[in-house]
Amino acid sequence: MRFTINTELFVKGLSIAGRAVAAKSANPILLSVKLEVSGKGLSITGTNSEISISTTIPNTVDGREVLRNTSLGTALIQARLLTDVIRRIDSAEVTVEIIDGTIAKIDDGKSSFKLFCMGGDEYPDIDFALEGRSFTIPATVLSEIVDQTAFAALSKDGKPILTTINLKGDGEHLVATATDSARLSKKVIETDAGANISCNVPAKVLAEIVKLPDPRDSVEISVDADRAVFVFGNTVVACRLIPGDYPVSANIIPTAFSYFLEVNSHEILSAIERLSVLSVGVAPVVKLSMSEKGVEVSSGYSQTGSGVERINTFQYEGERLDIAFNSTFVYEAIRALGGEDVSFSFIGEMKPFVIRNPNDESAVELITPMRTR
Amino acid sequence: MRFTINTELFVKGLSIAGRAVAAKSANPILLSVKLEVSGKGLSITGTNSEISISTTIPNTVDGREVLRNTSLGTALIQARLLTDVIRRIDSAEVTVEIIDGTIAKIDDGKSSFKLFCMGGDEYPDIDFALEGRSFTIPATVLSEIVDQTAFAALSKDGKPILTTINLKGDGEHLVATATDSARLSKKVIETDAGANISCNVPAKVLAEIVKLPDPRDSVEISVDADRAVFVFGNTVVACRLIPGDYPVSANIIPTAFSYFLEVNSHEILSAIERLSVLSVGVAPVVKLSMSEKGVEVSSGYSQTGSGVERINTFQYEGERLDIAFNSTFVYEAIRALGGEDVSFSFIGEMKPFVIRNPNDESAVELITPMRTR
Repeated sequence: MRFTINTELFVKGLSIAGRAVAAKSANPILLSVKLEVSGKGLSITGTNSEISISTTIPNTVDGREVLRNTSLGTALIQARLLTDVIRRIDSAEVTVEIIDGTIAKIDDGKSSFKLFCMGGDEYPDIDFALEGRSFTIPATVLSEIVDQTAFAALSKDGKPILTTINLKGDGEHLVATATDSARLSKKVIETDAGANISCNVPAKVLAEIVKLPDPRDSVEISVDADRAVFVFGNTVVACRLIPGDYPVSANIIPTAFSYFLEVNSHEILSAIERLSVLSVGVAPVVKLSMSEKGVEVSSGYSQTGSGVERINTFQYEGERLDIAFNSTFVYEAIRALGGEDVSFSFIGEMKPFVIRNPNDESAVELITPMRTR
Repeated sequence: MRFTINTELFVKGLSIAGRAVAAKSANPILLSVKLEVSGKGLSITGTNSEISISTTIPNTVDGREVLRNTSLGTALIQARLLTDVIRRIDSAEVTVEIIDGTIAKIDDGKSSFKLFCMGGDEYPDIDFALEGRSFTIPATVLSEIVDQTAFAALSKDGKPILTTINLKGDGEHLVATATDSARLSKKVIETDAGANISCNVPAKVLAEIVKLPDPRDSVEISVDADRAVFVFGNTVVACRLIPGDYPVSANIIPTAFSYFLEVNSHEILSAIERLSVLSVGVAPVVKLSMSEKGVEVSSGYSQTGSGVERINTFQYEGERLDIAFNSTFVYEAIRALGGEDVSFSFIGEMKPFVIRNPNDESAVELITPMRTR
């Protein structure tokens, strides 16, 4: 195998496929990328137990030759090592040549590296074929869906299905739901794409995937019983799904409320951020105290002390209400909504409450309050 | 105790004194800063076993009132907590008031925090008095001395004296020397300041101290048997010295050489950096191969592979010479010299060699080579 390639595109391809390569593994094959030169170009593949990524650099891009001097073949090279070397190459082009199947010679005329490598035959077979139901959405929309929901999934050990984002299409809407059981995040997109789809994609994996496409790309997603495949540009990503029925029904979000608060997002975020300084080594709990006369956010801890923040700009409707919650949950929810203002709707002190962007009804955040003394 | 203070200056003062506060300690007093309001202003003090820092914010700066509404007193407040709160205060002014000796109330009219605190009497007595011989040098010169030598001191456990920078004045020069026994860095400043001074200041402490002054400051340094005191602006720093004779004499640097190489600093640094990618989990060793026909830098490791870098721009005088060394040592030395070009002077394959900036003879780096197979 041999090729001479545009260094910048090679770095970009290695960084895309490298996202699927484990940082640590006892199996050197899983620490490698597979390089394959075929008539289509150079494909770079990485895989781990959760996700596999393959990206292809074609012979020409926009009519410009970016890959030349090729001879067909495959090789496995340590992913981090190869990426670190190529990233530091000064020249615009670099040549890679496999010698005796065991040495990858990398040369730009100034730097000459010989990295140990393995034959491509030792790499696991990965099925990137598009099977099952499929639909296509813009990369920016997929990215927005994931950014607004992934944070609410369980990030630590626990029920595997709670670490996922559930994607469900009914022919008119695509609904994404994530919950760690103390909070829930739901995003609804009006689209006929994804009809009759329902799958549970690990949230961390999806958060990685949405970083990869160019914003102008469309993403084709195909779902079968146990895996989803994402195709965009010259890249294909396969990931395993978590089986089982998602534990939350679509109508869990309450609709009748007795208390309504609207505040400036920046003001309440910075108040929560200041108070979070006090929660050293314990869960950050904040109490929101509301009446038509004033709104305050406060916290108190036995180790450090207490704090009260006055919210200057607000609209409030309802009786006086005090409600306490994990402030990280509310902070992340407001950030995910991304609006200038944020609206809270409450049923009562111990009932889950709803946070929305008043100017964008597509996303909704549901949070369970905490009991305070 | 009570004061209303310019928030920005308070943050700056806390960050200066906070550099002496331990990140972890079983003793809460050592995790605190001492605040003291006196007629002179607000002084903020931090201390650990190695270094103590006290900085004073006066009542006025350039005729502008920055501290007002004061009542005298002292208090100890958790340093990180206080700094984190004050750093996030939105207002230009903030008021701190000690209530019942146990609560520090922090208020800017919008945020109101109550942090637990202790009485100032519990703080250790720290001697910041200037005693012994003293001299004054510009802060920028002290900073340059430390930047060009500190990296060569021992950073890990070992002989304590090797973790220091030795400062020695003979009435005409001030000489700073640091060595970890495999490399040595020496910087000579022509000055009559510091005559008859010789002291061993921990290199890490000195590297912290030189970050603190304003570049326009002068630093007065006074040295007695077991401590040095540094005074600049409104800040005073006391640190303990390491006793004993510094183990390196001034004339350790060889003066007669048989081989001379001059290269562009950037070119050799980037070659060393690329080769360092290959040294995963082992000491980075580089071989420099020189003749009048060409200069190459190379590395080889059993785990990863090998690399050769051609140096395009060089001047070399001497027979053919191959010499191997710890590439981190040479990398750090070239960076510390800070010149466009760098000159190497060699005696032979296994003799310590000298690196200099050809346009600045004030600093010299001595490095012991390594044996290669």
